[in-house]
Amino acid sequence: MTPRFSYTLRATDGRARLGRIETAHGGIDTPVFMPVGTVGTVKGMLPGAVASTGAQIILGNTYHLMLRPGADRVERLGGLHRFMNWPGPILTDSGGYQVMSLSDLRKLDEKGVTFRSHLDGSKHHMSPEASVGIQHKLDATITMCLDECVPWPVEKADADRANELSLRWAARCRDAFVERPGYALFGINQGSTFPDLRARSAAGLVDIGFDGYAVGGLAVGEPQEVMFDVLDATVPLLPADRPRYLMGVGKPDDIVGAVARGIDMFDCVLPTRSGRTGQAFTRHGPLNIRNARHAEDLSPVEADCRCPACRDHSRAYLHHLFKAGEMLGPILLTWHNLQHYQDLTAELRAAIAAGTFADVAQRRMADWRTAAHRAKGVEQADAARTDA
Amino acid sequence: MTPRFSYTLRATDGRARLGRIETAHGGIDTPVFMPVGTVGTVKGMLPGAVASTGAQIILGNTYHLMLRPGADRVERLGGLHRFMNWPGPILTDSGGYQVMSLSDLRKLDEKGVTFRSHLDGSKHHMSPEASVGIQHKLDATITMCLDECVPWPVEKADADRANELSLRWAARCRDAFVERPGYALFGINQGSTFPDLRARSAAGLVDIGFDGYAVGGLAVGEPQEVMFDVLDATVPLLPADRPRYLMGVGKPDDIVGAVARGIDMFDCVLPTRSGRTGQAFTRHGPLNIRNARHAEDLSPVEADCRCPACRDHSRAYLHHLFKAGEMLGPILLTWHNLQHYQDLTAELRAAIAAGTFADVAQRRMADWRTAAHRAKGVEQADAARTDA
Repeated sequence: MTPRFSYTLRATDGRARLGRIETAHGGIDTPVFMPVGTVGTVKGMLPGAVASTGAQIILGNTYHLMLRPGADRVERLGGLHRFMNWPGPILTDSGGYQVMSLSDLRKLDEKGVTFRSHLDGSKHHMSPEASVGIQHKLDATITMCLDECVPWPVEKADADRANELSLRWAARCRDAFVERPGYALFGINQGSTFPDLRARSAAGLVDIGFDGYAVGGLAVGEPQEVMFDVLDATVPLLPADRPRYLMGVGKPDDIVGAVARGIDMFDCVLPTRSGRTGQAFTRHGPLNIRNARHAEDLSPVEADCRCPACRDHSRAYLHHLFKAGEMLGPILLTWHNLQHYQDLTAELRAAIAAGTFADVAQRRMADWRTAAHRAKGVEQADAARTDA
Repeated sequence: MTPRFSYTLRATDGRARLGRIETAHGGIDTPVFMPVGTVGTVKGMLPGAVASTGAQIILGNTYHLMLRPGADRVERLGGLHRFMNWPGPILTDSGGYQVMSLSDLRKLDEKGVTFRSHLDGSKHHMSPEASVGIQHKLDATITMCLDECVPWPVEKADADRANELSLRWAARCRDAFVERPGYALFGINQGSTFPDLRARSAAGLVDIGFDGYAVGGLAVGEPQEVMFDVLDATVPLLPADRPRYLMGVGKPDDIVGAVARGIDMFDCVLPTRSGRTGQAFTRHGPLNIRNARHAEDLSPVEADCRCPACRDHSRAYLHHLFKAGEMLGPILLTWHNLQHYQDLTAELRAAIAAGTFADVAQRRMADWRTAAHRAKGVEQADAARTDA
């Protein structure tokens, strides 16, 4: 029998939460990191490889998928799960954020947003109802409301106007959403860095009623402490019995800090995009595999990591693959970075269960600070080297 | 104990041979197809994925590896097997063919060939001794002699001159080769399409004495029947107790025809390179996955194929990946094509063992002919379609 969509709070440690989400496509242990599979694929990874890292849910981008291969086509082919052979839960964004950032000639009004495709210039209109309808055609496990995300910094009047529009759109998304067992609709909290707007947004969204609540409009260029301040002010206003999702975040230390503030779900292109350009995340900070010092280093990217990049290959080999422009370099480092993010969230879940979250978070932060400090010295030493 | 390099002829069926090669890095069942791993990686494939298709030996390109990451570096890092995590046998070419086709400002004389790197313009000299020395540093299981490969068509006088030079170089390679248990040096038969030059080359090489014999200078643009005529004239002149390797070949029907003429080993970029551009090999002929007719086809590239592209994904999905320029498309079709080539050679080996080679070869050829005939009609129908 298909389970109802539900969130169970299993343990808390400070404000950090251990939870479990049940969906039509399987369960999700939170805090969770969702790898980004923009256009029906987590770039360079077979679905089984994504699952092998421990990923339980992935994200698809509605804007990209509606343009190519098209929502109707995905629906005819049985939905996104079947299309890309990912049977687990999939969350799709509303498309709004990418419409604003990628498309041409956009015009936004009460009805929705009109834009031209960045692929072929074709004209499209997206309303709250259309966004939800497209996400239904994609068969999204979790559908996100269409909202207007403002840049940072922004005038309060602009943030207020966008916030009110987003609330009206949220109500229309709620009306357009077709309930099915195990599927969910999430609202998105906006209001930029203004606590009263964030509070107004939270109250409005709770009034409408959603299966989960996202915090949007962050990770748009503001300093980390600003983001954390917003979370401190906002998260307590979101219902404790629903999952909380911080959209588009982030670096590993962003995730630790946000979990400490009660966030349950994350997505970010950082592990996959960085992996494609030669940047590896490690317990001791980021590492650029293209750097000359790795050219003859037989040690793995990270000791004790179980991904194939670390288990089967040396830094020297990965360095060579990137220098030679070989596909296997991006494949292996993407895999490693996704493993790193999944291992991080697994460690945070275990710490919350054990009541040791503060210690684990502090140790992680200390490792990264030490690494950042050391990296400055290494960069200076590297400047004197050349690479074959 | 490290085995000696050996070739055991296990069965014959007509001129087709079933055999087994033992090497320092493992055994090889022949006829065998060797995937090309140009610069220390079979493009887009983890080593375990290559092995999963049934591949028992891969090829590395000396020219590419000597330029990047460099033979000395590979040696310091423990040799190519360790460097790329392929513990099985590796055959390296001499580098001569790529020097002729890829590098700039080449000058060839009795001593060897001088050339500039296509990567950075750096000047290099490669003699027969240097080629063997580089292949030793790479730790090649099977080292190939440096030779001069002439284009097709060529004047007989030019082919004769290059042939004589290649024989003198072969003797120098033999002298430079350091014997180690389980390692081998192969000579390369040349002489273009002139039977007397091929015979002169074969006699000269047998005089010097090699662990295996390659037929070179084919698959350089000549029609298939010309290639088969050369094999008919040449293969019987090569020692029956040594493996015979047709370099750079080829399409599936080239392989069937060459096995029928007594060839044991093959290498070709076709399955990997075609996979990257959307061309899939199937039992019923080649298939271009970018073609509009696959856009909503839920069937696999090939029924009954056990590769992940066919087992887990539809033609529609692969079509989408190629249209969207996603890495996973080339990864999956490369995997499929390598699987197809390994399945083909496995089928040929089983047929030789069963004494049914002629039947199997005929059935394969008939399938491809039917497909080629049908493809003309499909192309005409496709010309009338558009693709989203």
